[in-house]
Formats: sequence, structure tokens, C-alpha cells
Amino acid sequence: MHPSLAPLIDRNAFIGGCDKVSSIIGAERIGKKAEGTMPHSLLLLLGEERGWKMYDQVVEKGTMRVALVDTYGDEKEASIRAAKTIKGLDAVRLDTPSSRRGNFPDIVREVRWELDRRGFRNVGIIVSGGIREEDIEALKEAGATGFGVGTAISSASAIDFAMDIVQIEGEDKTKKGKFSGNKNVFRCPECHSFLVSTEKEENCPRDGKRMENVMVKMIDRGKALYREDLEGTRNYVLEQLGWYELSS
Amino acid sequence: MHPSLAPLIDRNAFIGGCDKVSSIIGAERIGKKAEGTMPHSLLLLLGEERGWKMYDQVVEKGTMRVALVDTYGDEKEASIRAAKTIKGLDAVRLDTPSSRRGNFPDIVREVRWELDRRGFRNVGIIVSGGIREEDIEALKEAGATGFGVGTAISSASAIDFAMDIVQIEGEDKTKKGKFSGNKNVFRCPECHSFLVSTEKEENCPRDGKRMENVMVKMIDRGKALYREDLEGTRNYVLEQLGWYELSS
Amino acid sequence: MHPSLAPLIDRNAFIGGCDKVSSIIGAERIGKKAEGTMPHSLLLLLGEERGWKMYDQVVEKGTMRVALVDTYGDEKEASIRAAKTIKGLDAVRLDTPSSRRGNFPDIVREVRWELDRRGFRNVGIIVSGGIREEDIEALKEAGATGFGVGTAISSASAIDFAMDIVQIEGEDKTKKGKFSGNKNVFRCPECHSFLVSTEKEENCPRDGKRMENVMVKMIDRGKALYREDLEGTRNYVLEQLGWYELSS
Amino acid sequence: MHPSLAPLIDRNAFIGGCDKVSSIIGAERIGKKAEGTMPHSLLLLLGEERGWKMYDQVVEKGTMRVALVDTYGDEKEASIRAAKTIKGLDAVRLDTPSSRRGNFPDIVREVRWELDRRGFRNVGIIVSGGIREEDIEALKEAGATGFGVGTAISSASAIDFAMDIVQIEGEDKTKKGKFSGNKNVFRCPECHSFLVSTEKEENCPRDGKRMENVMVKMIDRGKALYREDLEGTRNYVLEQLGWYELSS
Amino acid sequence: MHPSLAPLIDRNAFIGGCDKVSSIIGAERIGKKAEGTMPHSLLLLLGEERGWKMYDQVVEKGTMRVALVDTYGDEKEASIRAAKTIKGLDAVRLDTPSSRRGNFPDIVREVRWELDRRGFRNVGIIVSGGIREEDIEALKEAGATGFGVGTAISSASAIDFAMDIVQIEGEDKTKKGKFSGNKNVFRCPECHSFLVSTEKEENCPRDGKRMENVMVKMIDRGKALYREDLEGTRNYVLEQLGWYELSS
Amino acid sequence: MHPSLAPLIDRNAFIGGCDKVSSIIGAERIGKKAEGTMPHSLLLLLGEERGWKMYDQVVEKGTMRVALVDTYGDEKEASIRAAKTIKGLDAVRLDTPSSRRGNFPDIVREVRWELDRRGFRNVGIIVSGGIREEDIEALKEAGATGFGVGTAISSASAIDFAMDIVQIEGEDKTKKGKFSGNKNVFRCPECHSFLVSTEKEENCPRDGKRMENVMVKMIDRGKALYREDLEGTRNYVLEQLGWYELSS
Repeated sequence: MHPSLAPLIDRNAFIGGCDKVSSIIGAERIGKKAEGTMPHSLLLLLGEERGWKMYDQVVEKGTMRVALVDTYGDEKEASIRAAKTIKGLDAVRLDTPSSRRGNFPDIVREVRWELDRRGFRNVGIIVSGGIREEDIEALKEAGATGFGVGTAISSASAIDFAMDIVQIEGEDKTKKGKFSGNKNVFRCPECHSFLVSTEKEENCPRDGKRMENVMVKMIDRGKALYREDLEGTRNYVLEQLGWYELSS
Repeated sequence: MHPSLAPLIDRNAFIGGCDKVSSIIGAERIGKKAEGTMPHSLLLLLGEERGWKMYDQVVEKGTMRVALVDTYGDEKEASIRAAKTIKGLDAVRLDTPSSRRGNFPDIVREVRWELDRRGFRNVGIIVSGGIREEDIEALKEAGATGFGVGTAISSASAIDFAMDIVQIEGEDKTKKGKFSGNKNVFRCPECHSFLVSTEKEENCPRDGKRMENVMVKMIDRGKALYREDLEGTRNYVLEQLGWYELSS
Repeated sequence: MHPSLAPLIDRNAFIGGCDKVSSIIGAERIGKKAEGTMPHSLLLLLGEERGWKMYDQVVEKGTMRVALVDTYGDEKEASIRAAKTIKGLDAVRLDTPSSRRGNFPDIVREVRWELDRRGFRNVGIIVSGGIREEDIEALKEAGATGFGVGTAISSASAIDFAMDIVQIEGEDKTKKGKFSGNKNVFRCPECHSFLVSTEKEENCPRDGKRMENVMVKMIDRGKALYREDLEGTRNYVLEQLGWYELSS
Repeated sequence: MHPSLAPLIDRNAFIGGCDKVSSIIGAERIGKKAEGTMPHSLLLLLGEERGWKMYDQVVEKGTMRVALVDTYGDEKEASIRAAKTIKGLDAVRLDTPSSRRGNFPDIVREVRWELDRRGFRNVGIIVSGGIREEDIEALKEAGATGFGVGTAISSASAIDFAMDIVQIEGEDKTKKGKFSGNKNVFRCPECHSFLVSTEKEENCPRDGKRMENVMVKMIDRGKALYREDLEGTRNYVLEQLGWYELSS
Repeated sequence: MHPSLAPLIDRNAFIGGCDKVSSIIGAERIGKKAEGTMPHSLLLLLGEERGWKMYDQVVEKGTMRVALVDTYGDEKEASIRAAKTIKGLDAVRLDTPSSRRGNFPDIVREVRWELDRRGFRNVGIIVSGGIREEDIEALKEAGATGFGVGTAISSASAIDFAMDIVQIEGEDKTKKGKFSGNKNVFRCPECHSFLVSTEKEENCPRDGKRMENVMVKMIDRGKALYREDLEGTRNYVLEQLGWYELSS
Repeated sequence: MHPSLAPLIDRNAFIGGCDKVSSIIGAERIGKKAEGTMPHSLLLLLGEERGWKMYDQVVEKGTMRVALVDTYGDEKEASIRAAKTIKGLDAVRLDTPSSRRGNFPDIVREVRWELDRRGFRNVGIIVSGGIREEDIEALKEAGATGFGVGTAISSASAIDFAMDIVQIEGEDKTKKGKFSGNKNVFRCPECHSFLVSTEKEENCPRDGKRMENVMVKMIDRGKALYREDLEGTRNYVLEQLGWYELSS
């Protein structure tokens, strides 16, 4: 995406549940520290083992040590070497190019097996490179412990919405294709379903519970009324994810 | 799309062949005058006929007069009324909501027919609202003379590309999945096919013509060498569209 | 369909559960009064509001008042006008042409909403024009209260059946592809499943109940034995619809 | 189909290009002699060989002799027997039940082969039973010389058409979804394409030829003007089939 | 398949659950008597009824009598004749050619019906000719009592497997794409799921039961350790089929 | 496949156009020398570079040197190392496991590129491992020079054929589903199409050429007449491949 959007993407990714962001300005905006991993160019310039060692020496204590293991050889063999090279390695990163990615979960499974057989049970496996939402379940089951997701988040499909006139000086009025009148948005505290209505109060048509009015007035006579609460929004999102897990 | 991207979208749309842009800052950047049409809210507030008339009085001479005709009634009936209301109307705009858009080309065909039957052959028909590239041919054939395209352009799919190390201090070196060595990009002046090669000169493998090297060095030791030529790029794009029409 | 079939279609539609029929001779045959709605030509000749008013004055008391609302403008706006024009209007009819029928349930939903917002909760919504069996559920959910179904009923696919010789002078005999011997048709009073058998009595293979023999001899030595009971047949059909609703 | 439609179906089938019709009243209406073949019941009652022989004795001279060959055994073996039984047999008829119709063209091919091997090259093969338009080419190629088509013709899908007001007292007027104004229908004598237009004369937009106005006024002020010419219509249909064969 | 494989196919078919094999050498190897049915050539040479009778006279007592009924005529008619010809007929065999096999279960159903109607309830129906695994359920339901399956068994798809080095002189070592280390294969006695592990003992991850180690060492330092137990293997297969029926 | 079939498979592969076979007994039967490549186990036991070197020393002069390059690391890096290790290396072999085979042609393309960049233009690329007929074109285009195909050839789908009685003592006779009478098989020397006919001579229905009778009597009164000519059959197959290339 265009660099001018990076801080915005980082903010939205954080709200949406991602644990870490990597652009410096994006991290600043949300009051976090930017974190990332080594690039292939480091290993091309220094060689794999020298590159891993110098990265370990230079990066400040307390930051995760993640070794890139797909530059020259096979991920399995390089992972074993990286684990032997960096003492206390936190994870290896597999950014396997698509031409070598016949079955990515199988590669992860093998890397997991060989690391375990040599006692590196604490070394995690981070996968990256064109990871899509639908790939994550199989990769997690295969043993991946972290996911570096870029395009799938930053170039997510736009959600169409519109602002419409629905009342003029107290009289219901709108264009064809829209519903006239002022409305409230209600949510049931029990089943979390929504209801749009012109009423002031509603009971849930499914379970009869009194619904909560979640309508928020954002602008009044040209004056903005809404102020963002970043952590609150993120927690609200994570809480909703919980609902879905419970109900599905 | 996010408003901070609007000038960039306008610039790219212009380069890509669009005739007009509507954001003021976007138009300024490319040295053009922003142009647009009336919103539904104008007609909701004033009523259709009064809205059309006041728009005609207020908008400066020399700017296209385009009347929105899908607010309350049917596009056919409103188009006839708009053409009778604004003398010298340039076009009607059909932004028909999707629930009424059973067969959009058929609606355009009817509007065209009725306008023609009443002598309004010079009134164009502009269609807008979720128009996609693949809709345009049928709409043009039905009689549409202009296209207001938003989402399909502004939220086009991202094109992945990468910057890679392919040589280090004179020696071919790259990661797996990439091709090592410095390369040139050649284009055939005859058949317009491309060839990537490490050679300095190439003849076209199809027709034997000496190919043109279109490789452009953009950065040299950290210094930018490339300067954009907006009109030139746009003309180059339009010229290429011509090639395709000839060859397909 | 060919006009000579109209009374037959009306009879079958009534037996199959339709509430009203509109051909005069068809209605007579089943001892009912023909009922229908206004045509577009009435409104083209008189204009919408004048047409609605005159229809209201002329049609005899006790017959449903249904106003056609898709002649010139949008169904939503015309429905509001019709409800204001005819006092005690029973329903509006939407015969929306296919080119304007992007999402018919959405149009019904909007009409319902706007009528309700203005206090016309008793005005029903009748939809017509190429309605197929599979459309009805979504339209009913959207608020449609009546359905004018023509082609889908009158041009329903023919059901192949054949009359076959299965016994000649007491001896089982039939052509290849058929089952020889005289048969009875049994139905279970409990689960309503059928069984064809050469036996005189059968118990249901599912639940063991004594089955009912529903075989009817229609012709005996060239003499017709069967006489139709119209209301009885219709009630039997509606009763069966009840079974399916219970079991599905 | 309902028996009351039979004469109508026969008339339409004849106009559409069928060679013979089988209902007595239908044949009378078009001034032809009804022709048909023997039913399975004849052979069930008399046995195959006795049935074929008696049919041959009873049916008047000059009428085609067609023996049904799928009653008890296999079509191949029965065809040979039928050809030996009726001297000068015109054709066998294969009405093979669907459960035995694994590959109908292959059965026809075998029957053709065996008849030819025994010198019965003049015995045709008529196929019947659920024959659809798309089956005919493969069956003809396999050797079928006649086609008994019932359901596919008599229960063809209805073609929707409508009568609309397009002008009222000299003024263009119509409902939404229709094109206003009086029109003519033109056909090009060269490429046979059609053009609907409000003009009195048109040249073909493809090849510039002066087009023929094929508009026919059927009713004028309530008086029918059109009289049917049965043979003429049929010849016109067959002539058009020729056009398509030439152009495809 | 190539004749040199026939004994092997017969052995595998028997192990896999087939009741009888027909090649003499294949039957000998597994200590059974070869059994089969008559060929079409017998009936072509002798005629159907004479062929059936002579087969009945010649075949030794105690062997099933199965009459082929698809040589010349229809299966239904020939089945009745065969049942009347051979007293105590065990079964008819339908090897219907594909061109006559429109709906094979329907043909079986008819044969069953007509045999039953004439008192031949003890005559079974054996179907053969390109029978595939997925056809069997419908044919069995229609009344088939035996299945002659050839190609589907003898040309079953090969199962890929490989022998790999996973340890060299006590050290885990393997090529990429394989899992290093010596492994055992465990099966749960309760849920029959499998687990591959480098451990000596395992509990089932589903239900906690102590798993059975089903690893079998087949070769040790070049010496074969495994000896086949034919009946045992077959019983084990049939036992497993039982599991699946219980759990599905 | 079962080992007892190996010589047969080798014979058929050779006849079908393969250049080399690898089973010793199969090679003997067709009078050729068996040839093959190194297994992964060699490199696992000795290490890649030591294994390549010893193979080069031990294998007799005049036999192709092919180095396996997919055991531990990436094919690209190992190919460069192998080419540097064995002087005069004929080819590398890529037996890439499926989990690493995201885009096999792309891997071949990279290997080709890097070998060429380093002057190893004479080192071929042999691909193996589940190669199917439909993969070969893309792999060849990417730069593969040899194909090790196993399963796709050895487990090819069986071709059904049958031996049938078509005449008994001079009289045409056959079962239903077959064509009676003695036949010849004719082939056109011009267009190579086939014709089955009971005639002694035929002209090609396409181009009128006198056709060649390619019927071969293989058995006469129980005596085999046919003797195989291995090289002749293979040449005939290769000649036919030429026909197809010319005509497609």
C-alpha cells in the first residue's frame, strides 16, 4: 500500500487484534514499540550464520530473536543450524518463496519435528509471505506459532457505506432505495443480534431481552462529538471474537 | 478510500486515461479544474425541478450541465422532465440504486429512446454507482455517453512487486526464488513484447527486430534519478491502449 | 396459454390452493366470483390519480381495492400517493418490470416501511409479474401479502404418465420396462408414505400401521366410475400441505 | 397435454415442419390424413409375430408399414424377425424404455448393421419416446430415418409476449419498461436481420439494402384483419430453416 | 490385467473380502476351489435353452447354478425362461451391455418382480460388467444378490509408498520431505485411530486408552521376518469393515 | 507395481518411445543396457559432495553422470555445487518432494538461469517424481532436458477389449451389443483414419484413397501366427507420433 497509509494500517491492524506493528510512526501513534525481523538482504550480505550471530549481538535485550531460514537452502536444515547458532533463539521465520511452497503446513510440520527431535522445543515457528486468513488454521495445526500477515490486511476489500438524508425539518424524506426517518441501532445483550428501528426502546425478537441502544451520534450541527478510545475499541473487538467462538 | 489518498487516486486515474477528476486538491496537482455533478441531497432539499433550475443558474457558464434523475421516480420519466426544465442540458445522470437495477442497459436504452422521440438527441446519458470495467461495453452499446467510476478504480487490487539484491560487489548473488545478475528490459518496437536479459542488446525472438532497452535507473547510490512527466505518461498509456485494440 | 385452456387452468389452480381466479368462465365452473385488478392501460388513459379514483368509484362495494403503482414512477413514491388517494385502500400492486427489478424483496421492504411510517399499516402489498415458487418465501418475508402468479402455474411442466396392460385374461403380462400384475396403492395413515403392491392388505414397513388402500377404479369395462368433488379435492390438497409442513 | 389442445398442437407441429400428424380431428383441420403406428397393447394381446402379420393384413395399401420391436426382447433380434415377417416392411419402430436405453444411438447402429447384413437395407428405423431436439443429430447419424416426437413439441415452453399501449390520441405514451410510439418491423432481404423502428422506411445497417416492412396490422378498431394461410406459413418456416443452414 | 498377475489379484481379492475367485491357479494358491459362470459363447453355440440345460447336466452337484440371461433378448423375459428351464436354479446373471443399461437397478427391480410373481423367490440375481464400488448399494437395494466385479478390483489405483533412511548409526538423519528418527505405529483399541510416534508407548489422544503398538519389523539385517497368514489377514480386514459400519 | 511385472513394463515403455529402462532383467529382454541414477540413500550415507565424487569415480566411463540435488538444501544452490564438484557433469536430477514443489517449472527455470550464469550451459536438468504427461510441456519449456517418469507409465489405465464370436459355421451370429460378421480393419495411407468393414477392399471416405487392410490374424485353429518385432513396433509408434505432430 502507499506509504502515507502505513500508520493508518498499523492502527487498524492493532485495533483488529494484531499483537505487533512494524512501522515506526505507526507504532508511535498507538503508543507501542515497533518490532520486526531481519531482511533477506542481511543474510545475502553477511552469509546466514554470520548474519544470525551479528543480529543476536546487536538487537537489544528483551526483543524477540527471530532467525530467517529460507534464504539459500531448505527450511528444515537451516532451522536446525539457526537453533544451534543463536542460543535462546525465540523463533525461526519461514518466508518460503511460492515456487518452493508445495505444501506449507507440511514444511512447518517437518521443521517442528526436527527441532523437537534435537531438543529445541522452545523455538517457535513464524510463517510469512502472502498468508491469507484461510491459511492460518492449517498452519497453526501444523505447528506455526506466529503469523506475519501483510497484503491480506493492508489491502482488505473496502466496505461500502453511505451518509443519507432521512428527515428534513422533522418530516420523513429520503431518496428511493433508502428508508426514511430517524433510527436507532439496538443490540441484544444475550444473543448479540442487531435491530434497526425508529423506536426508542426494543426487546429482542429472538429472546425477549431488553436491547441496548448502541447508536452513537458522531456529529451534531457540524460539531464532532466522538473521540476515539484505542484500547477500548481493541478490547471490544477481541470480546466480540470471543462471542463468535462461543456460538459457532 | 481514505481521504488522504484522494489526490493520489485522482493522479493515477488521470494517467490511466480518465477525462476528469473531482477532488479539488487532486485536480490542482495535475493542473486541471475539478468537475462534478449534483448530489441527491440537493434534490431532496429543494425538490427535483427547483433543484435542477437553481443548479443551472448557479454553476458557471462553460461547465457541463448534468441533471441527476433517479431520486424519486423512474429514470425515464425524470429524464424527460429534466430535459424540458434545463435548456441546453448536457446530460442526465442515472445513479439508479441496485434494488431498482434489474437490467441497467435496458433502462439506458429506454431513456435514450424517449429523449430521442422528443428531440433531445444532444442530451447525453451518464451512468454511475458501482460501475465495473466489465459493465461498460454493454452500457455504451445501450447509449451511455459517460461513466462515473469510483470503487472499481480507487480500490483496484494491489500489484505485488519486490526490490531484490541480485549482485554484491560484482558477484551474482541472490536468495532462492530470484534470478541473480544485473538485467536489462527490452521491448520490441514491432510486436511490443518484452524480454528480460543480462545482455546489453537483444533482437526480438519473434520477428528479429533490434529491441529497445526500456530499463530506467531510478536510484543511483541513494540519489533519485527519475522525474515524472505526467502528460507524457498518460499519452504513453493511451498509445498502448491503441496497440491492444489493433492487435486484438 | 391458449384461451381454450383458461377454465381448466382456473379449476386446477383453485384445487391446488389458490384463493381467487380471474377468468369469468373459469370462476363460474367452480361456483366462485371472478376477481382481478386494474390494468396499466387504465392508468395510461386516465393518469394515475384519476384512474385510481374512478376505479374506486366504479368497482362494487365489498370487492378488494388494489391500486397498481408501477406505471410511471417509483413504486415507493406511487404507493404513498395511492394510499392517500383511495380511502380504505386494501392493497397496492407491484408489477415492476424486470429491468427495474434489481432486488424485488428490497423494493417491497421499502414500500412497507414508508407505508407504515405514514400510518398505512392496513394497506397490503400484492406482487405480480413472473413470480416463481422459489421467489415467494423471500417476498413474503419482505412484507408481500398477496401473490399474482400466472406463468409458473399455467405453464407448469407436464407430468408423464402412461396407461399399461399388466394382465390379460387373468394372466400377468406386460411389456419390458413395466411391472406385471394387478396392483393396489396403499397409504399409511401415520407417516403418509405410499406402497404399491399386488396384495389386498398391507402394513406400513416403517411403523407397522395397517395401511389404507387408496386405489380408485376409474373405468370398468368402458364405463366411467369416478365423479369429481371439487371442494373435497381442494381440502385434501390443503390437508396434505399441512403434513409436509409438519414433517419438514 | 389436455386432449382439447390436440388439434391445435397438430396444426402447430405441421406448420413448424413435421411431416405427419396422428390425431384424426387435427389431421382434418389441416386437410391431411392422420397416420400412426401400432401400440404395444396390440402385440401384448396377439403376440409379436401374429400382431405384425395382422397389422400388415388390415392396414390399407399405401400406408407405411412400421413394426414396433421393443415389446418383449431386444430391439436387434426383434427387428430381424419383423423384417422377415412382413414382406416389404417400411420401418421398425424403437420405443425402447429408458431403463434399457444406455446408449440409444448405439442400439440404432446395431439394428442398422444387422438389417443390412441380412439384405434389409430398405427397412427404415423410426425412434420414439422422449426424443428431444438435441438427441436427433446423433440418432440420425447412427442410422435413424424417422423421429416420433411428442412431449418436446407439445409441451414446449411458453413464449411471453404482451400487448401494450404506446400511443394515445397521437401522443407517444407508455408505461415504464416499454418503448413509446408506433413502430414498424423491417427485415433485410439479404441477411434476414430484423429492425424495429418508428420510421416508414429503413436500410439494413449491416449491408445497406432497402429493408422490407413485415409489420402486419391484425386488428383495426376491434375488427380482425388477418386470415391464416396454412401451407404458406409452413413454407415460410421451412424457407427460414434453409436460411439458418446456409448461414451457420 | 496381465495374466501373470491373475493369481496375485485373486489372492488380494480374497483377502479384501470377496467370497470366490475364478482363476484355477489363484484358487489353488489360497486353498479354495475356483468357481465361475457360463460364457456368452456357450449360448451362442448351443442356443439359450439348450445351453442352460446342458450346463445344468454337466456341472458337478453342489456348485451354484447360474444362468446367463442377456445374450439375445431382454433380461426380464429370459430370466423367466431360465427359471422355468433349470429346476432349482440358484441365480440368473445379468451382464447387460452398456448400450442397453439405461437404468440397471430398474432392470434388476423388474426381474425381481417378475420372478417373484411366478414363485421363483429363491432365484438370486447376479450382476456383472463394469460394476463399480459406488454402483453396488443401489443394485443391492434393487434386489441384486451377487456382484461379479472385475476391472474395479484388478485395476485399482496404486498406493504410493516409499522406503526411507531415517537414522544412520544411531543418529537421526533423513532427506528433506521426510521425518527423521525410528518410529512406532500405535492403534487405539477403542476408537481405532492411528498415531505415529518415536515413543515406545502411547495413550490415545482422543480417549486416553493405552494404545497397541502395531509396528511389524519385516526385515532385519537382510533377513525376512514376516510370514503371511492368509485367513488371519482376511478376517482382520472383515473385522475392520465391521468397525466402519459401526462408526459411520 | 508388482515386481513380477517390471520386465513387461520396461518392454512396453521402450516400445512406447522411452529412451532408457532401469530394471536389469527388463533391459536384457529388449537387448539394451540398464541405466539409472544415484539414490538419496547414497548421499545420506556419504554426504552430498563426497557422494557425488565417489559416484563419478566408480561409474564406468561412457555412462551419463547425473547428480541428485534435492536431498538437503535448495535445488538451485546444490546444482551449482554439483556442477563445480563433478567435472563434465551431464545433468542434475531434481526429485523435489511435493511439499517443496510450489511451482516446479519455476524451480527448473531458476536452476537453468544460475547454471548458465556460471558457464554450465552443457549441464542438463532431469526432473523426476510423480511427473505426469500433462506436466511435461511446461517443464520442457522451463528448461528440463530429461524426464524420469514412473507411476504415470507403469500404472496407466487399463484399456478394455473383448474377444467375441461374430460368426458360427459361416453364419453371422453374435450377442446383443456386438456387430455380427467377419470384419477387416482398413487404414488410409493419406489421412491415417481407420474404417472397420465386412468388405475386402475399401476407399477412404474422406479422400477417396485406396485404404490398406491392417487386419492381422493372430491365431488360426488354435495356432499362434503372430511374432513380435520389438524395434519395428517401436519405430511404428514413433512414426505415428510424427503423424500427430504434423496434423495438430
